[in-house]
Amino acid sequence: MAEQALKLRPISDSPEAGQPYDAVRSILDKVKAEGRDSLTAPEGKIVCDAYGIAVPQEGVAKSSSEAASLAEGMGYPVVLKIVSPDILHKTEAGGVLVGLKTREEVEKGYESILANARNYKADARVDGVQVQQMLTGGQEVIIGAVTDSSFGKLVAFGLGGVLVEVLKDITFRLAPATHEDALSMLDGIQAAEILKGVRGGEAVDREALSDMIVKVSQLVSDFPEISELDLNPVFATASGAIAADVRVVVDFSPQPERYRPSQEDIVRQMNRIMKPDAVAVIGASAEDGKIGNSVMKNLINGGYKGKIYPIHPKADEIMGIKAYKSVKDVPGVIDVAVFAIPAKFVAGALTECGEKEISGAVLIPSGFAETGNVEGQEELQAIGRKYNIRLMGPNIYGFYYTPQNLCATFCTAYDVQGTAALSSQSGGIGMAIIGFSRSAKMGVSAIVGLGNKSDIDEDDLLTFFEQDDNTKIIAQHLEDLKDGRSFAEVAKRVSKKKPVVVLKAGRTSAGAAAASSHTGALAGNDKIYEDVFAQSGVIRARSLRDLLEYARGVPVLPTPKGENIVIITGAGGSGVLLSDACVDNDLNMMSMPDDLDTAFRKFIPPFGAAGNPVDITGGEPPSTYRNTIKLGLEDPRIHSIILGYWHTIITPPMVFAEVVIDVVEEMKKKGIHKPIVASLAGDVEVEAAAEHLYANGVPAYAYSTEIPVAVLGAKYKWARGAGLL
Amino acid sequence: MAEQALKLRPISDSPEAGQPYDAVRSILDKVKAEGRDSLTAPEGKIVCDAYGIAVPQEGVAKSSSEAASLAEGMGYPVVLKIVSPDILHKTEAGGVLVGLKTREEVEKGYESILANARNYKADARVDGVQVQQMLTGGQEVIIGAVTDSSFGKLVAFGLGGVLVEVLKDITFRLAPATHEDALSMLDGIQAAEILKGVRGGEAVDREALSDMIVKVSQLVSDFPEISELDLNPVFATASGAIAADVRVVVDFSPQPERYRPSQEDIVRQMNRIMKPDAVAVIGASAEDGKIGNSVMKNLINGGYKGKIYPIHPKADEIMGIKAYKSVKDVPGVIDVAVFAIPAKFVAGALTECGEKEISGAVLIPSGFAETGNVEGQEELQAIGRKYNIRLMGPNIYGFYYTPQNLCATFCTAYDVQGTAALSSQSGGIGMAIIGFSRSAKMGVSAIVGLGNKSDIDEDDLLTFFEQDDNTKIIAQHLEDLKDGRSFAEVAKRVSKKKPVVVLKAGRTSAGAAAASSHTGALAGNDKIYEDVFAQSGVIRARSLRDLLEYARGVPVLPTPKGENIVIITGAGGSGVLLSDACVDNDLNMMSMPDDLDTAFRKFIPPFGAAGNPVDITGGEPPSTYRNTIKLGLEDPRIHSIILGYWHTIITPPMVFAEVVIDVVEEMKKKGIHKPIVASLAGDVEVEAAAEHLYANGVPAYAYSTEIPVAVLGAKYKWARGAGLL
Repeated sequence: MAEQALKLRPISDSPEAGQPYDAVRSILDKVKAEGRDSLTAPEGKIVCDAYGIAVPQEGVAKSSSEAASLAEGMGYPVVLKIVSPDILHKTEAGGVLVGLKTREEVEKGYESILANARNYKADARVDGVQVQQMLTGGQEVIIGAVTDSSFGKLVAFGLGGVLVEVLKDITFRLAPATHEDALSMLDGIQAAEILKGVRGGEAVDREALSDMIVKVSQLVSDFPEISELDLNPVFATASGAIAADVRVVVDFSPQPERYRPSQEDIVRQMNRIMKPDAVAVIGASAEDGKIGNSVMKNLINGGYKGKIYPIHPKADEIMGIKAYKSVKDVPGVIDVAVFAIPAKFVAGALTECGEKEISGAVLIPSGFAETGNVEGQEELQAIGRKYNIRLMGPNIYGFYYTPQNLCATFCTAYDVQGTAALSSQSGGIGMAIIGFSRSAKMGVSAIVGLGNKSDIDEDDLLTFFEQDDNTKIIAQHLEDLKDGRSFAEVAKRVSKKKPVVVLKAGRTSAGAAAASSHTGALAGNDKIYEDVFAQSGVIRARSLRDLLEYARGVPVLPTPKGENIVIITGAGGSGVLLSDACVDNDLNMMSMPDDLDTAFRKFIPPFGAAGNPVDITGGEPPSTYRNTIKLGLEDPRIHSIILGYWHTIITPPMVFAEVVIDVVEEMKKKGIHKPIVASLAGDVEVEAAAEHLYANGVPAYAYSTEIPVAVLGAKYKWARGAGLL
Repeated sequence: MAEQALKLRPISDSPEAGQPYDAVRSILDKVKAEGRDSLTAPEGKIVCDAYGIAVPQEGVAKSSSEAASLAEGMGYPVVLKIVSPDILHKTEAGGVLVGLKTREEVEKGYESILANARNYKADARVDGVQVQQMLTGGQEVIIGAVTDSSFGKLVAFGLGGVLVEVLKDITFRLAPATHEDALSMLDGIQAAEILKGVRGGEAVDREALSDMIVKVSQLVSDFPEISELDLNPVFATASGAIAADVRVVVDFSPQPERYRPSQEDIVRQMNRIMKPDAVAVIGASAEDGKIGNSVMKNLINGGYKGKIYPIHPKADEIMGIKAYKSVKDVPGVIDVAVFAIPAKFVAGALTECGEKEISGAVLIPSGFAETGNVEGQEELQAIGRKYNIRLMGPNIYGFYYTPQNLCATFCTAYDVQGTAALSSQSGGIGMAIIGFSRSAKMGVSAIVGLGNKSDIDEDDLLTFFEQDDNTKIIAQHLEDLKDGRSFAEVAKRVSKKKPVVVLKAGRTSAGAAAASSHTGALAGNDKIYEDVFAQSGVIRARSLRDLLEYARGVPVLPTPKGENIVIITGAGGSGVLLSDACVDNDLNMMSMPDDLDTAFRKFIPPFGAAGNPVDITGGEPPSTYRNTIKLGLEDPRIHSIILGYWHTIITPPMVFAEVVIDVVEEMKKKGIHKPIVASLAGDVEVEAAAEHLYANGVPAYAYSTEIPVAVLGAKYKWARGAGLL
């Protein structure tokens, strides 16, 4: 770990590469030996020095010229202090001078301090005069580090002072942070403008500040026992950054080891689970209303083509399929076992699965950690580890994987194939996903229940869906992340390829309290989730409906090739609301070039509004929509289009929809494929028109100006995070 | 106006009641006479003194004891400064002493300043020593006033310093502000906590600060020519507030007079327009596709029972109704005329309406200000004033008033009677209102298009709907307020009786730009709208969908009797999201009393979660929902209930809906009527269940945890603003 640290730190280029680590190590060993839980100020200074974190410079001079040389070296102003074991009250003795600004002042100051000391106490032993860098001006900031139970080491940055404490204007990144992460932190606070210099103030040295952030993040990553670190305040000026005060808290108690299979193992096992050749149903039943019956029905009626093995202690066959008493009696290989038996029988059956070398167990039964039966769940985890079975659940509805027509669940079947992979921690939310999907005809590749997450977690799913060609977007509802560090690492990689959307429930304090009572997991600080999601390229949904709409709409849209967005609208009023929504969603409304403005004007009435939005006005025929949309698609300076339709007799809703679809198809044939979303204002016929548009690749919404723009905004967030813009 | 001002100001209780006004008047007269546009610092001080706005005290002492007396009077610390025409560089002359804290220091200081002066320049004439109150410590704040083109005089409050300028943490109220308004401003900034004292700092004197805000607001109200005023900084301490610097900008150009009929006139005329006994259709037509034909069809087929007079230059009858060449030919009284003729003919026909003493003109035609024809619109306004005709539009779809079965519009008819009155500035948004209403079966009392708002404005509608027994909620889409002052005054009164919900489009800068190009009206600073809406009890919708959902849901809910909300949920996951939504909507989740917790626990499984949310768990029968909901309704400590339903076979969606409706009805018979909203998670059957619940008084939503809570939140916002909680 030290090696990795040294590779990242500039300091490592020096010949003393091993020394910084060793210097800190020996301090920490001493603190541990003495049973302390924090470092003294001098120890803190040594740690900072070792990692190249600037603290006020100081030195002891034995002569006035030496004092002046020290001062020159550290820069003015400086403070001079008498160093004498016999003088306790330095100020009283005239032994302190502050704010010395020139060589002459320092030399004179040195002499006058010595003279004052002699006057004060003629026989005092004088060891010299301490010269210390004096910190003044600049912007006070805070750089710190914390240890989060889910995310591990995090580095923090904020502005110093009361206002920031009150406004909680602070930002976090996973440690170690890259230089880019650190720079993004300077822009990641609300008051970022202050660092750029306001009201005649100078801009701070961004390199120096971000360098200090990187070093702090590296330090705490190198030494997990540093549980908290505060540089507060750090004085940031135009020419550097110096930490005036250092506080280091340590915790030597051993960190719990986390079980982390390799990415290869995850892919291999998750593929066997999600795309099995053979499924066993433990607790299969022919009796209506039983969970084991629902699972059987869903497997059979859902159209699953692999082998199905009902497991039942007595039955010879269930629903026409030969049954077995145990998975061990099944002649062939089994990939996954779906459990539909009471909690108390699960451990025994799971052991048999292990002996049968089954890759995954879908643990539908409840009655484990969520009801207080933590030991029961730990027993399952132990069996899972022993036999290398991956566990989904317990306390789940199961899962759907539509490319295999696989409904390994007791819920209603779902068969609209598509590219959105959804998951939920909660069963209720899972049902909402299924209902919404069916209602909105959303094509899904998978819906997965994670429940108690005794083993399979969000990042296992990310790893599977990353390499699953049937999945184009991953949307997850979650209440906690048992291993946020692992999630972030995987999400950072996966989100470069496919959009990852997350609804983090329990994001407010009341919500977090409910999360705690629901899952027994402590919900983390929401600001940490916010920042780590951003750092990992995760798109955060603010509501259940947003999660679902993003899952539905984002994969329908092509990836935009640039930031320029144009609104074309028949209703000026919609144009205003769509513009509002653009700002809300960080979308850039193109400033309309004159020639393009002229080109648009050719198609619209003279009183249509200029610029962007392009207001074609309400009474226009289909050709006006066609001409303007076509122009918007053809002009390479425009990258995405937002449509505002106004229901009129001249251009009825379905005619509008057909025009849009037709132009889009025509352009596609020419190789032009840009994101288009639409907002439809009108009587109820607009609902069918919106549905028709959606089915043809144009996310469209009736009576809403905000949702279509939010969907486009999600696409842009992803494209930016993935480095495609 | 001065009298009114003096009544509000404490200063007016003094015998010199007329003097403050006169003092400011004479300063302003002088500034005007001299052709200046701002006041000098001494003039600013006189203005502040006149209105009792504290500025640093000062006086000139001729002796050390006089200096001490002055200092005692103003409080320590003080500054002493030599007063001498012969000493220009006071500091150089040793003529300034700062931070004197005791009587002794002042007396000694006086003498030493005189001595220094003599040393410096023996023959200098010395007029005395100025004693000035020294402002130190405390919190720097800003109190100011601006003149907004729509809202008129506004008072502003914020924290001083760079951070606030960067974070734009400032709040506005209409001037004059009441003491309560002023106090609410202290709590209305993000950093409000700072004023309460943080990190050992003292809390500021809230009375002194709010008193200063009130006085500033009164000053600018008394003197409209004061266009801007800044007290910056104001030093706020635990014992008072003093403005260290005063800046007053004046504008003596005459203010445009606004046309404001009396509230009585508005009510009388709006009643004739909205509930007419006779309607003329100018430009009535028998020809399909013509606007005048659509209007006739809507009037006849909509079921309007009053008299209809088609006006047409040639026809004798239209759609079986006798037609007239002019309104003047109609024998009886006409209340309102609906215009369906080209723009160029409108003025002439409007004059005839005036001669016929018609109360209102519904100006559907476009081709006025929105197309640049400002003169044409001004001509209509002049005719309207001359004949006292109120004008709706031009450039509108018309209006609906369902209690009269009146569809005075060319759009599709709408007939679902209800209690929501909606209006829109834009025709497109009007169509979205109609479509949504029909789709959601939302009962409406009225839908009104306001378009160019040449005359009838949002506040005219508020005044009408206030006294309209058929209306229980007023929901308005607007892009600008031509007379925000009038709107705010009326809304403040009306919102005490009925919820007023507003979607202000153009709230972001891009949106505002679009608003400007659309209506030619400059969209105001959004923060001003935000604060004035809050001050006026207006509930602000953040999106079109919110506006519509609030209009639909809020009137369905009874008014809550208290702030305690309990969530009862079958899905723990929904409980967490519903809790999040409570925080987002400023709703107070009740801390569950022990006895009530025990009572709930009796009905739920042992592993159901304690507290609030009440997690009844997923597998429960209808009786568990029934028992817990009943308990929640019966216990007087609970004021509102949020339900989270999870679709299961044991309690299917419609069974859940019936149980809820049944319990609610049962409780109503006992006189218990509390707000209940529901979030339904499940397969598509939950949609019908939600609709059934809604139709029976329980706003319910499928696949959304946020919308039901937002609707409840809107009800609470209204109830709080109306003083009912």
